[in-house]
Amino acid sequence: MSLLVVGSVAYDGVETPHGKVERMLGGSCTYISLAASQFADVKLVGIVGEDFAPEDEGILVDHGIDLTGLEKVPGKTFFWSGAYSQNMNERTTLTTDLNVFADFNPNLPSLYQSAPYAFFGNIHPALQKQVRGQMKAPRFVGGDTMNFWIEGTREELRETIKDWDFILINDEEARLLSGDYNLRQAAKRIHEMGPHTVVIKRGEYGAVLFRPEGYFIAPGFLLESVFDPTGAGDSFAGGFMGYLAEQGIENIDQASHAHLRKAMIYGSVMGSFCCEQFGVGRLRTLNRDEIETRYKEFKEFTKF
Amino acid sequence: MSLLVVGSVAYDGVETPHGKVERMLGGSCTYISLAASQFADVKLVGIVGEDFAPEDEGILVDHGIDLTGLEKVPGKTFFWSGAYSQNMNERTTLTTDLNVFADFNPNLPSLYQSAPYAFFGNIHPALQKQVRGQMKAPRFVGGDTMNFWIEGTREELRETIKDWDFILINDEEARLLSGDYNLRQAAKRIHEMGPHTVVIKRGEYGAVLFRPEGYFIAPGFLLESVFDPTGAGDSFAGGFMGYLAEQGIENIDQASHAHLRKAMIYGSVMGSFCCEQFGVGRLRTLNRDEIETRYKEFKEFTKF
Repeated sequence: MSLLVVGSVAYDGVETPHGKVERMLGGSCTYISLAASQFADVKLVGIVGEDFAPEDEGILVDHGIDLTGLEKVPGKTFFWSGAYSQNMNERTTLTTDLNVFADFNPNLPSLYQSAPYAFFGNIHPALQKQVRGQMKAPRFVGGDTMNFWIEGTREELRETIKDWDFILINDEEARLLSGDYNLRQAAKRIHEMGPHTVVIKRGEYGAVLFRPEGYFIAPGFLLESVFDPTGAGDSFAGGFMGYLAEQGIENIDQASHAHLRKAMIYGSVMGSFCCEQFGVGRLRTLNRDEIETRYKEFKEFTKF
Repeated sequence: MSLLVVGSVAYDGVETPHGKVERMLGGSCTYISLAASQFADVKLVGIVGEDFAPEDEGILVDHGIDLTGLEKVPGKTFFWSGAYSQNMNERTTLTTDLNVFADFNPNLPSLYQSAPYAFFGNIHPALQKQVRGQMKAPRFVGGDTMNFWIEGTREELRETIKDWDFILINDEEARLLSGDYNLRQAAKRIHEMGPHTVVIKRGEYGAVLFRPEGYFIAPGFLLESVFDPTGAGDSFAGGFMGYLAEQGIENIDQASHAHLRKAMIYGSVMGSFCCEQFGVGRLRTLNRDEIETRYKEFKEFTKF
């Protein structure tokens, strides 16, 4: 089943205790799409400049990602760089050059408009809403956001998420959006804003799925070594949404617990792989067998 | 089966965003013993002053805890007070009056010496070792420690844990003791120091059990409201060790995965109850039915 993925396609510079890469393929849309492509037919919606390299486009094409919706315009591709602390729990942004991304105003190609699923990466909520409005037969949609939009464009964000079936944000964002520190209370407040299903990511500790009737805790995988956490949350989103799209779920509100819990674990699996190499390195080479093996490991270290 | 619990019996003053209690029963030995008493025959080893109130002794007696090993000496009982931050993730110690605890030098009553199990709360490692030496037929023993001893008495601590079958410490302590930030690596280093089984507590995020052949992640219970986290880690220890003692496990190295995983969940269950009221309030009223109900909730929100 087709899944629209909307967000940033970028070049990233990343420094971690394991090394430094000056410039490599990145962006939320890239990570989400690559992770989701393991499960579903992904239709990417993004924008890049003239400097976007054929080999990077090739990575996306090799994963069967539909690039009809990737605009190429004069100018430079979005560039971000950041450095992680020694324990990798803190990240400092060094550069944010929006470049062509500043004028991103996504229009869905006609073949994209009938896609049943969409995931909106972290971009301006007005753009997320605008794309949602172009979908002709949505089954369900969801997305991510960040502190910047919660603080700066709260009303627009509230308008946008009213129409979302699920939202996938981290614990700090959930607290900021809801005004409640306790995660169960925060999830209730956010549920009242529109999304039936609320997924709260907790970094290395995993993620929690909240639905009106209960919750499910997915632990984080304990890696022997974390190379680069950039994109782990987006890879989680890709695994979660990709798996649900693969299953052809009609409606997330009525999806079975079994499906949603599996989606959470596939999300965690994809997030864990993402950290094993710099940038999209691990997502490039990953295959479904490796994913299923790690899924089984999750079963093994959680069952009692 | 009898379980020795060694540690501090104290009076605590606690301030959280939910209120303030000037003086109430506390101490690691108290929390561990009350939690473990739900499962096993607990023999307490501790020291109190003349101010130790009969009603507080009554709480312990009501839980069937053997107080033969509770010394009462002239002077005042250990007093500690602390205040929690708004989100309760940080705690500031306001007072530490060791009082009679400064001269604690535990001697096991003769009826205690044949107990098969022991858990050593966070006290000077030399005292932990000294008590271990008085046990005549230990099946397995384990304990806790803290940054203060890891930094100040590292060699004595290393000597002490050489003889432990398991150690139960938090993530910061595991990193400090092992010199490794990554938890899997840290657990390996600590395993090499002696303990076959390493349990690393991660506060609200739960705990991880490491054994040479693999690991198990127990998530933290998501409470709707955390009243007072004091004693949660000790209650975890009591639930974990109490359950293993109840099962009459011969040897923790050879204990089944099923038993150890259940012990982890009972630990988490006891830690979660502890936070629901100030001090030992919730542990006082708790019954086994409530424990089993919450155990089932853990199954419900983790299975997939």
